[in-house]
Amino acid sequence: MKIAVLPGDGIGPEIVAQAVRVLNALSPKFDLETAPVGGAAYDISGHPLPPATLKLAKEADAILFGAVGDWRYDTLARELRPEQAILGLRKHLELFANFRPAICYDELTAASSLKAEIVGGLDILIIRELNGDIYFGQPRGIRSSELPLFKGAREGYDTMHYSEPEVIRIGRVAFEAARKRSKKVCSVDKANVLETSQLWRDVMIELSKDYPDVELSHMYVDNAAMQLVRAPKAFDVVVTGNLFGDILSDEAAMLTGSIGMLPSASLDKNNKGLYEPSHGSAPDIAGKGIANPLATILSAAMMLRYSLAMPLEADRIEAAVQSVLTQGLRTADIYTAGTQKVSTQEMGDAVVAAL
Amino acid sequence: MKIAVLPGDGIGPEIVAQAVRVLNALSPKFDLETAPVGGAAYDISGHPLPPATLKLAKEADAILFGAVGDWRYDTLARELRPEQAILGLRKHLELFANFRPAICYDELTAASSLKAEIVGGLDILIIRELNGDIYFGQPRGIRSSELPLFKGAREGYDTMHYSEPEVIRIGRVAFEAARKRSKKVCSVDKANVLETSQLWRDVMIELSKDYPDVELSHMYVDNAAMQLVRAPKAFDVVVTGNLFGDILSDEAAMLTGSIGMLPSASLDKNNKGLYEPSHGSAPDIAGKGIANPLATILSAAMMLRYSLAMPLEADRIEAAVQSVLTQGLRTADIYTAGTQKVSTQEMGDAVVAAL
Ligand SMILES: CC(C)[C@H](C(=O)O)[C@@H](O)C(=O)O
Ligand SMILES: CC(C)[C@H](C(=O)O)[C@@H](O)C(=O)O
Repeated sequence: MKIAVLPGDGIGPEIVAQAVRVLNALSPKFDLETAPVGGAAYDISGHPLPPATLKLAKEADAILFGAVGDWRYDTLARELRPEQAILGLRKHLELFANFRPAICYDELTAASSLKAEIVGGLDILIIRELNGDIYFGQPRGIRSSELPLFKGAREGYDTMHYSEPEVIRIGRVAFEAARKRSKKVCSVDKANVLETSQLWRDVMIELSKDYPDVELSHMYVDNAAMQLVRAPKAFDVVVTGNLFGDILSDEAAMLTGSIGMLPSASLDKNNKGLYEPSHGSAPDIAGKGIANPLATILSAAMMLRYSLAMPLEADRIEAAVQSVLTQGLRTADIYTAGTQKVSTQEMGDAVVAAL
Repeated sequence: MKIAVLPGDGIGPEIVAQAVRVLNALSPKFDLETAPVGGAAYDISGHPLPPATLKLAKEADAILFGAVGDWRYDTLARELRPEQAILGLRKHLELFANFRPAICYDELTAASSLKAEIVGGLDILIIRELNGDIYFGQPRGIRSSELPLFKGAREGYDTMHYSEPEVIRIGRVAFEAARKRSKKVCSVDKANVLETSQLWRDVMIELSKDYPDVELSHMYVDNAAMQLVRAPKAFDVVVTGNLFGDILSDEAAMLTGSIGMLPSASLDKNNKGLYEPSHGSAPDIAGKGIANPLATILSAAMMLRYSLAMPLEADRIEAAVQSVLTQGLRTADIYTAGTQKVSTQEMGDAVVAAL
């Protein structure tokens, strides 16, 4: 089984290195091939997603991704910036279904800025559509205005867009996921204002007839942003578009207080996927050996479960991560008094040992 | 001075009634004229914003607004739904600057789902643009797709849009507001993906040259949704577009745990404004006499300060509200053990008495 390993920028290489050690410890059979992506790729080749990297990603059975982005690239033209690599991979590989679990580990409840009774035991799944919406809609651009009121002034514009088949395919992913959980799907939109959302909602309602065993509810995105703060445990599966999903999945991740623990998966229709931690490239702590590798290690577990049909091995990784937490080992981001602070490498050692 | 009073639906009439009592207690000189809006207006006239209501709103020096919306109207065509009244008022009166303070009262810190050290003393101001963005951008609609991949399927689309003058005018409001506070403006966008945001950011940077005494920073909307949960007190003034502002201002309000306390103002370029509580119409508790009138009473105070040039009277209302909190009076939404639970009417009585 071929796995494309794309470490990227910032802490990406350090945390991916630990996930690779875990995979190698699990089985010598993985064919791991590394390629540059993001700013690291730009430095070498002048493009954040060079053709060779894209080719490898296409050929591989799954992709293990670190993180991209660094202030050094902020002044580049948008199409050369590191983020374009992740947007490009999602689009070229048709990775339309983003799974973002927000889980609060019992051992880490204290790390949350929310009260323990609000987040303790939290386990929700945000499913974000990743191939459509205002991220890719046309037309878009910056031009000189033709509106009488603003004639000649610069104006920026983008197109939000969803078609029925796009909503159906992400909707099915959400309903199927809910069937394996508490059988509740909350679809988030802004149907009181947006036409795109009205279509989204109509299609979700029609689709729900195929899933009579799953309870479908609808929530406006502003209200969802509030309810996540007020009572996050009331959710089970949340399904939403690319833009609202970007915002809400990050908010949900931060509720746990331990975003350094949260993996994510981005899947195509055949369950081929890209796996990456929910957190970013954190250039401020890169190279210091203090980053938390657990989100990336847990992303590797998701990869085994969703793309490589190795659920037992996935379970083993997750059990090993649970075990290092129980042992009291913590990287700086999740450290609290009374636990033992360890480095990125030591955390990797501990997970490998616990396997 | 003429004030248009638009109570609306759900708990709107009950809470507005208490704010009207407070205004009358303050001065017999206010010329208060009431008109129906939202579902209540639809029931009478077939439209959520009847011409007579719009005319009154235009003529008045300020508008005191309750809330609109009720499940009974959910099946109406979008243009007849109660929310259209508030969107229509914003647009027709060019109320482009929405002030949404998120304040955590010391007495109410325990009501928050966040830890006291995270939200205690919170005092941030979200300034949301209210006349542009994807709320009003054209074209928009639901049509049969012409895209080769989706040919014939339904598709929904909307246009996000900002022009330079629109960004400048809301930017100035934010910089001016920051000057009266801690002199920090955080502009929130999604410039790594959206052209509209790129223009927004460019214009904010240019504009900031006029305000060298104010510190301007930029944050992506997904990160802002996280940082509000992690460390909300790090913000001072947040300025953002209509859609991101809708989401973030509700999230920020909910952080306090006492959204029943939070007023808002929507101003035009002459500081004429519409004042309404940050919370909604809560049809589930309408008519029970338990709703919290304080957000509406505090909205009346904002009205005196911003639109009617009566800052001393505004101070008096705010001091009276602080005093009822100190006395331990609480409506059900902010009640905690050891305090005294009161009705909507009793809370109004107490504020009037404290004046
Ligand atoms: C880097 C950025 C383009 C990206 C997004 O907005 O999708 C990121 O925020 C994410 O959520 O993966
Ligand atoms: C009712 C709705 C149209 C409105 C909005 O989205 O602006 C509301 O959520 C608000 O924030 O005032």
